[in-house]
Amino acid sequence: MQPFHIGFLLWDGLTQLDMTGPAQVLSRMPGAQLHYVWKTLDPVMSDCGLALLPTHTLESCPPLDMICVPGGAPVAPVMRDAAVLNWLRTRAPHARLITSVCTGSLILAAAGLLEGYRAGCYWASGHQLSLFGAEFVAERVVIDRDRITAGGVTSGIDFAFHVIEVLHGRDVAEAVQLALEYDPAPLAGGTPATARPEILAQVRAAMADRLAAREADIAAIAAGQAGLR
Amino acid sequence: MQPFHIGFLLWDGLTQLDMTGPAQVLSRMPGAQLHYVWKTLDPVMSDCGLALLPTHTLESCPPLDMICVPGGAPVAPVMRDAAVLNWLRTRAPHARLITSVCTGSLILAAAGLLEGYRAGCYWASGHQLSLFGAEFVAERVVIDRDRITAGGVTSGIDFAFHVIEVLHGRDVAEAVQLALEYDPAPLAGGTPATARPEILAQVRAAMADRLAAREADIAAIAAGQAGLR
Repeated sequence: MQPFHIGFLLWDGLTQLDMTGPAQVLSRMPGAQLHYVWKTLDPVMSDCGLALLPTHTLESCPPLDMICVPGGAPVAPVMRDAAVLNWLRTRAPHARLITSVCTGSLILAAAGLLEGYRAGCYWASGHQLSLFGAEFVAERVVIDRDRITAGGVTSGIDFAFHVIEVLHGRDVAEAVQLALEYDPAPLAGGTPATARPEILAQVRAAMADRLAAREADIAAIAAGQAGLR
Repeated sequence: MQPFHIGFLLWDGLTQLDMTGPAQVLSRMPGAQLHYVWKTLDPVMSDCGLALLPTHTLESCPPLDMICVPGGAPVAPVMRDAAVLNWLRTRAPHARLITSVCTGSLILAAAGLLEGYRAGCYWASGHQLSLFGAEFVAERVVIDRDRITAGGVTSGIDFAFHVIEVLHGRDVAEAVQLALEYDPAPLAGGTPATARPEILAQVRAAMADRLAAREADIAAIAAGQAGLR
């Protein structure tokens, strides 16, 4: 079987499940070869105090059939990192699938890779995709041509099963689901639409300050890019 | 708030989502301090080609309020690793919760920590818990006194929300669900009971040889322990 090279972008402060969820699922896809990519081979610290080791630098990474950009709270510095954006722009035309999880779509968007596309994002941040010409869709998995983008964090697992379905069909996706015992049993209320109003208000309040700072930062990035056009 | 120290046992070949799923959820629990523990501080290789960095050795790890043992396919060597079993036996009496995900329960069982307990496990391996005096329950989260054990791989995420519910109540668990956008949308058939028969047969066939070897290995470990009693 032809190998299918998947590159996950690691970055300092990423929400590790954005990446480790899809990696677990896609590692069971026939032919998949997973690569973990950052500027250096030094350990990358995630949001959970768990450090992850890249397997490749941006330069040493083999040609990729699929690029996957995970998200995280401190996403703005990556959105203005010229080396990362250039890497994404250079690699994207050669990839079959360009993908993201959570606020990873804002990184793709900052690289200009979602202009004119529908895309998923974390529920509290998706509205900022429009600053980069993308249309936010509040679904767990959004497929628009060769862009497959997930909603927040745990959506990355559903996303990865859809990637397998797109590439190998439903039977293979279901087989991997069974192998990973994916029959989730959530409590109620995992989205703004389904959460109890008092829980939603409390979560919004807890993230308000941090979110406001990030939104201002991202708006400035978008304004800077618009100035360059 | 009093810190609540959670130690995840890393081991070579672990199924990384068994650990990274609960770590992501529990990192959002009030007071949680996460530790990643192995014999050395060298990188530990997971089943996905992703290397993880321990934060502590077995010796340097602080006292733990909760121990969590993830699973993986090559579980037998860990089940006969005297240093690991001794660490678990020594630490367990001081922990409030003793937990596992997937075949991690077989490691707890080999340490003698599930004798007389009901426990979860990966669907294809749970029947071997009885060799160590534990009763397998085919559910995603099994709570028996201070043992909370999960089913296979992705069950670890559901497990972690239940841990938060046990320690902090339903509202906090739901708030973390919303923060992690946990509203999964699986395809059908993620368990033997719900999978289409042809998919189940195919997955069983694909893992048959490896599983038979592992089962023989685990049976030998259980027989060796019985001889010591």
